[in-house]
Amino acid sequence: MTYANQLLPREKVFRDPVHNYIYVRHQVILDLINTPEFQRLRRIKQLGTSSFTFHGAEHSRFTHSLGVYEIARRICNNFQRNFPSEVAGDGKWDDSERLVALCAALLHDIGHGAYSHTFEHIFNTDHEKITQQIITNPGTEVNAVLSRVSPNFPEQVASVIDKSYPNKQVVQMISSQCDADRMDYLLRDSYSTGTSYGNFDLTRILRIMRPYSDGICFDMNGMHTIEDYIIGRMQMYVQVYFHPVSRSMEVILNHLLLRAKDLYHDGKLEPELTPYLLLPFFDDQFSLDDYLELDDGVLNTYFIHWKHSDDDILSDLAHRFIDRKPFKSAKYEQENLETITRLRGLVADCGYDPKYYTGVDNSFNMPYDSYDTKKEIHDAQIKLMNLDGTLVGLSKVSDLVRVVTNKIVSEDRFFFPREFLKSDKQTDLFLPVHEQFRKYIKNDHIINE
Amino acid sequence: MTYANQLLPREKVFRDPVHNYIYVRHQVILDLINTPEFQRLRRIKQLGTSSFTFHGAEHSRFTHSLGVYEIARRICNNFQRNFPSEVAGDGKWDDSERLVALCAALLHDIGHGAYSHTFEHIFNTDHEKITQQIITNPGTEVNAVLSRVSPNFPEQVASVIDKSYPNKQVVQMISSQCDADRMDYLLRDSYSTGTSYGNFDLTRILRIMRPYSDGICFDMNGMHTIEDYIIGRMQMYVQVYFHPVSRSMEVILNHLLLRAKDLYHDGKLEPELTPYLLLPFFDDQFSLDDYLELDDGVLNTYFIHWKHSDDDILSDLAHRFIDRKPFKSAKYEQENLETITRLRGLVADCGYDPKYYTGVDNSFNMPYDSYDTKKEIHDAQIKLMNLDGTLVGLSKVSDLVRVVTNKIVSEDRFFFPREFLKSDKQTDLFLPVHEQFRKYIKNDHIINE
Amino acid sequence: MTYANQLLPREKVFRDPVHNYIYVRHQVILDLINTPEFQRLRRIKQLGTSSFTFHGAEHSRFTHSLGVYEIARRICNNFQRNFPSEVAGDGKWDDSERLVALCAALLHDIGHGAYSHTFEHIFNTDHEKITQQIITNPGTEVNAVLSRVSPNFPEQVASVIDKSYPNKQVVQMISSQCDADRMDYLLRDSYSTGTSYGNFDLTRILRIMRPYSDGICFDMNGMHTIEDYIIGRMQMYVQVYFHPVSRSMEVILNHLLLRAKDLYHDGKLEPELTPYLLLPFFDDQFSLDDYLELDDGVLNTYFIHWKHSDDDILSDLAHRFIDRKPFKSAKYEQENLETITRLRGLVADCGYDPKYYTGVDNSFNMPYDSYDTKKEIHDAQIKLMNLDGTLVGLSKVSDLVRVVTNKIVSEDRFFFPREFLKSDKQTDLFLPVHEQFRKYIKNDHIINE
Amino acid sequence: MTYANQLLPREKVFRDPVHNYIYVRHQVILDLINTPEFQRLRRIKQLGTSSFTFHGAEHSRFTHSLGVYEIARRICNNFQRNFPSEVAGDGKWDDSERLVALCAALLHDIGHGAYSHTFEHIFNTDHEKITQQIITNPGTEVNAVLSRVSPNFPEQVASVIDKSYPNKQVVQMISSQCDADRMDYLLRDSYSTGTSYGNFDLTRILRIMRPYSDGICFDMNGMHTIEDYIIGRMQMYVQVYFHPVSRSMEVILNHLLLRAKDLYHDGKLEPELTPYLLLPFFDDQFSLDDYLELDDGVLNTYFIHWKHSDDDILSDLAHRFIDRKPFKSAKYEQENLETITRLRGLVADCGYDPKYYTGVDNSFNMPYDSYDTKKEIHDAQIKLMNLDGTLVGLSKVSDLVRVVTNKIVSEDRFFFPREFLKSDKQTDLFLPVHEQFRKYIKNDHIINE
Repeated sequence: MTYANQLLPREKVFRDPVHNYIYVRHQVILDLINTPEFQRLRRIKQLGTSSFTFHGAEHSRFTHSLGVYEIARRICNNFQRNFPSEVAGDGKWDDSERLVALCAALLHDIGHGAYSHTFEHIFNTDHEKITQQIITNPGTEVNAVLSRVSPNFPEQVASVIDKSYPNKQVVQMISSQCDADRMDYLLRDSYSTGTSYGNFDLTRILRIMRPYSDGICFDMNGMHTIEDYIIGRMQMYVQVYFHPVSRSMEVILNHLLLRAKDLYHDGKLEPELTPYLLLPFFDDQFSLDDYLELDDGVLNTYFIHWKHSDDDILSDLAHRFIDRKPFKSAKYEQENLETITRLRGLVADCGYDPKYYTGVDNSFNMPYDSYDTKKEIHDAQIKLMNLDGTLVGLSKVSDLVRVVTNKIVSEDRFFFPREFLKSDKQTDLFLPVHEQFRKYIKNDHIINE
Repeated sequence: MTYANQLLPREKVFRDPVHNYIYVRHQVILDLINTPEFQRLRRIKQLGTSSFTFHGAEHSRFTHSLGVYEIARRICNNFQRNFPSEVAGDGKWDDSERLVALCAALLHDIGHGAYSHTFEHIFNTDHEKITQQIITNPGTEVNAVLSRVSPNFPEQVASVIDKSYPNKQVVQMISSQCDADRMDYLLRDSYSTGTSYGNFDLTRILRIMRPYSDGICFDMNGMHTIEDYIIGRMQMYVQVYFHPVSRSMEVILNHLLLRAKDLYHDGKLEPELTPYLLLPFFDDQFSLDDYLELDDGVLNTYFIHWKHSDDDILSDLAHRFIDRKPFKSAKYEQENLETITRLRGLVADCGYDPKYYTGVDNSFNMPYDSYDTKKEIHDAQIKLMNLDGTLVGLSKVSDLVRVVTNKIVSEDRFFFPREFLKSDKQTDLFLPVHEQFRKYIKNDHIINE
Repeated sequence: MTYANQLLPREKVFRDPVHNYIYVRHQVILDLINTPEFQRLRRIKQLGTSSFTFHGAEHSRFTHSLGVYEIARRICNNFQRNFPSEVAGDGKWDDSERLVALCAALLHDIGHGAYSHTFEHIFNTDHEKITQQIITNPGTEVNAVLSRVSPNFPEQVASVIDKSYPNKQVVQMISSQCDADRMDYLLRDSYSTGTSYGNFDLTRILRIMRPYSDGICFDMNGMHTIEDYIIGRMQMYVQVYFHPVSRSMEVILNHLLLRAKDLYHDGKLEPELTPYLLLPFFDDQFSLDDYLELDDGVLNTYFIHWKHSDDDILSDLAHRFIDRKPFKSAKYEQENLETITRLRGLVADCGYDPKYYTGVDNSFNMPYDSYDTKKEIHDAQIKLMNLDGTLVGLSKVSDLVRVVTNKIVSEDRFFFPREFLKSDKQTDLFLPVHEQFRKYIKNDHIINE
Repeated sequence: MTYANQLLPREKVFRDPVHNYIYVRHQVILDLINTPEFQRLRRIKQLGTSSFTFHGAEHSRFTHSLGVYEIARRICNNFQRNFPSEVAGDGKWDDSERLVALCAALLHDIGHGAYSHTFEHIFNTDHEKITQQIITNPGTEVNAVLSRVSPNFPEQVASVIDKSYPNKQVVQMISSQCDADRMDYLLRDSYSTGTSYGNFDLTRILRIMRPYSDGICFDMNGMHTIEDYIIGRMQMYVQVYFHPVSRSMEVILNHLLLRAKDLYHDGKLEPELTPYLLLPFFDDQFSLDDYLELDDGVLNTYFIHWKHSDDDILSDLAHRFIDRKPFKSAKYEQENLETITRLRGLVADCGYDPKYYTGVDNSFNMPYDSYDTKKEIHDAQIKLMNLDGTLVGLSKVSDLVRVVTNKIVSEDRFFFPREFLKSDKQTDLFLPVHEQFRKYIKNDHIINE
């Protein structure tokens, strides 16, 4: 029996709040879960700063990764039960693809780091590249496990994740408009936040999903279920992922890391506050091992130290992030950019450095890159299969989906300290400036004069 | 309008997966939530090492504390609606007690630290005393908020938590056999782990709960609902809280901190691995501020550093904890203690220091002190009220509860490295010792020769 | 204390799977629930023939009516807590309207009969008129209870239901685009069928709902929650309520009652099969008492008898309905009407009378009239309130809702016996006719030649 | 391909609120579901009079029967995946037993009639015998379907249900202390009533269940999960199934049918009120076909007619049942029997015939026979398997279960008209008698003088 085929004497399960149980039968999968690189995901929150808004959103990327694996496993089971390939190239499911699919599902996010998006923005890291490295770099335990399957197996798994793998069914199972990744995070984020928006009909989607020669499609009679999933996803974006308070905390985090980096490069960061594990990133010379040492707790530990800095801006921003003191914000359109310049001026008038105390945030630096709203429009459509086997694109038959696909779901916001919006008249020393500021905001929108 | 009576212009809500919404109307409550001491609870897991077994158990003490507040709020509402006091001393609910009850509910766990039980065991801290300090010490923001209500309000809130407050209804709402604390953690831990054992009928319990002159009792016709809650609690203990793998990780954590402390006192801990925030605890001279700097992430950050120690034991234990390599274990009874001595010897024979590589764990150092099985037996009984107003103790009328109260729910376990239980015959260098070891274990029990 | 103000000594509850508990404090409400007219709703299924498709959909109109009451009660509580009227005419909530609102909510469906829509179609009954009669007719117990409140109270309750009541907040609470009725049936039908489509965020909708001078509106920041509810409702229509198999059973029911009526008027219905309780309806001379004797079980009892009729069509249709032998169907557009005529001819060629063995069904005789897609378009819009108090229509701000409102959610279908679509080639005597029939159907659509 | 092996081209599903989907792959199963005998179960409520107390409990025996099938199917899948027989007689699962197991699971309740227990009590029917007849009698469609599998297949299926089938794994899957039947009804009744008591951990029970040479046992490490299920079952009995109001309606039903039968035999039942479909039962000469014509709706239809009887007792009892006017009740012990005689006398003093207006109800005529508390004590124990393969009885290792098994869960109650417990002093003509009556009742118990 080869390592690839080695099954556990009895299937092992992980109790999961979303899928009830996650079933593991392959020794390979169990070994991957037990690597330090995968266990590290326990220390990285799936939703970053969202738990500052939805306090229940404390789940980790570890939990989500197990869930993606489990959905992929169920898809394989369903394909094998209902659409087993009989002749090579018949467009049905070839179950010898199962292991590569399951490994890719489990590992698709393994390169994520603490507060990924902000971190990447400031330190020029790229979690997708790091995912590829963790899988293919001979120094990792993940690579060691995969290599035991076969010498080129790590490359195969990596190619599924970067979408270059030849079998499109496997690729689309892990990354497409309706894949195991998205399905798990919608359900899990809904469960953790206690909202119902992402709670679509998983079992039915699995049932109407089917392999075909060029990937994965769905039965036409399940069109409305897919539609419901797409709308649910959009709802999660507008109601949860893009919540202004979470984005505000993201802005503060960005400014905090930026300030620390600036101070470091100016030689002004106190020695006792040196973030040793971050230095390779400050110096723009980091190794994979450096990257794998980081997690949410490590970063927060530095922030806790920085609350004691003599630099007022650093200590204040650290306090705002650790103790949750978000900025306020208002929506704006491109035509208000001049007003924003004026508002920054007013912020400066009150003694704040606008570089660190204001910010704009839009869809180009959205915190959740797995949903690239821009790309999605041009992405391969979800395909529906008629009773006679012909295929049709989802947006052809669904008016609702057409609306969603023609639109970027996002809103641009300008962030600033709280007192500019609300202050106590009796005690506010800068009341005239604040009142001037407020004239430019109406119904949560920045307006021109 | 006094600060105590100051209501928000419109009630504020926190979306919660267990209670749907948590409602806040008092400015005092909102201000308490926004203190750094309370926000710190976001960075401390409610169930410590349990998430190593139940991966979903990633929720924090912050989340739980909000939940306890919400249940207390609902109890107050229900008491006020159905049993409002008309004359002082009539044994009904006096709604002027509401604010002190809500504050105590919110703050009852505020003194908890990272991995509380193990930490306390090694560093002689006491989270209950620290809770009292955070509330009554003039240096904290919590104290500042409470003092605005009235100068002696902090002491009042603290006295509810230490059970010396005169109104027993308020005290029992927060700490008794069936209180807001226990009710929230059972529901929340069930929800997060994805198990159903703790999922009792909260709404009905709230409905049958009633104030009386000496505290809180329950309608007799709800007896079976209370019974169900008690059994559910016991199930959570045996199935979740006392899970051998979580306890194993707790043992490793204990040994890891112990080793670091030993090395430090022997001057053998490498300078670059110095855990600065822990030093006051290593030196047994810590302030409240020192304590409030710690959280799960800070400790884990040190452990990540310690993986690189030259001390083999420290680096190995740090690796076991961070990368989840639990010990195995077996149950034992008092009559097997001699066998355990022998097993420790066998562990030493394979080159392991038994001080750091074996352990026993029993109900006296259980990780979840809020359920003191010993005390519970002698605790004030849950009281049931007959239709004619007479009271009777729960264990008088429930056979099931009688069984539970006559029994300590716990099991003693002996922990040791994995290979002593399972190893590969071909490659195991110590096979003869391991096989000798295994002779003493049968059906998960240590047996005598 | 007047009867209107008479509260139960302690609130009474009804355990409910959707709302957990339904709370009753008014003696009036409890007395209404205990009337025979209201208890009769236990014997009428909420979703008629839907349980032939979704077997869980067995819940009654009784259950739903309690649920509508409960949602209305929560709306009143919320309005009273957050928006209490201070001066008459200030556009806020006047809690003296509570009782009339609760009674109207409870009784809004009391005129529904067994298999309402089909029954009304054949016997010219009108459940809305009957609702008015049950409330205002001095012969009913419902009227007796309401009259105890005040002589004109029955008329007031009735006027809320027919929308002529002056207070628009009360009217819209019971019937509008987002009312207690619709909210309960979506949640309840989702729960019973085991589908998730109608499972919107009730608590949040209640939270963003607010009274204003001309009715009920919603906070602008809750726009996406309303949107989610609207889309969820549409999904329930297309996925559950309009399911072809349920509609097929509705067609059979229609034809069965029609055949019985035809036979009766031709004097050909066997005396021992006489449906005594239906005769007033066959004769088009029924009283309110006649109507109140009917329920699902009474009609089914006659159908069970009719299975023994010597009239082949009557007995066959009765068998089809009682033993669930649905027709098959296909969609058609107006341009296919000629084809349908041809298909009817082919059905006749096989010996079936097309009057009883084929049928068309479209949105004009949809089984669930509470959602009049036609009317909805012109209906008063859902209003959203900006932070500055200005109002805007939902479809102005929601692209998704605009799509839904510009479209009638329905599909026209043609129904026919199963064998015309599927039969066993070996044994099918009419195979050539069936094969000719099948040429006109492609991908579940009727096509022209 | 034989009929037994004939699989549907693609699995068919039934949407289910408890199990999400019910999967059907065998043509035989689909054909059985489509028989009139099985469809008839749609018209019979699973919980009889319980919906008078828990209004959500409106689900039918059809729904439950599908659920039992589904659980049995999952057990088979699990057995086949983890414990497939390799050699005949090795005590593992032989998958050629699957079809007989699934058919027995589906059909185990097919002989149930309307309001089974009361009906059987009065008319000497026996739903277990009728189940056997429906399966083995050549006149039924169920028999026709089963006979197509093989001539002796009907007998095999019937023998599984009457427990004489040789393979004990199959028998215990359908009827034992922890079988598919009980597991489904606990979950389903919990779901419908909206209570949580019966909501045990199905997935884990399926996981720890295993075949052995003499039937089905469970892994020792799952002991507490079984314990939780047993306690949950007991809770459903005391909190839901034995609810005094449901039992009161059962008493009224009993007296109503008894009165009608008495009148009929005395020739005093008005001709126009003749219950034709019941006559064979009144005359004690019924055929299987007669039995299969009855359902809840048919009986209720007669009751609706009987409300118009000139016989005051018949019309009053019919009104009480149809319009839900339950009797009140109190618990009694054997030592109070004399008091009960006295209370009956007082009831008679107020003009009521105690034969029809009082009743006692105890565990010997409990409405839910599938749980025979008496028998259970002596029943084959649930067996747990140690790691070394040895077996031990559940009550040996579970203190909680030992308590339950040593006790009959039931309470004897005496029923009587409402006004004897509560009446309006001003208007009560029989106040002195009522007050005398009330002296014998204290805290819901009948007491001796």
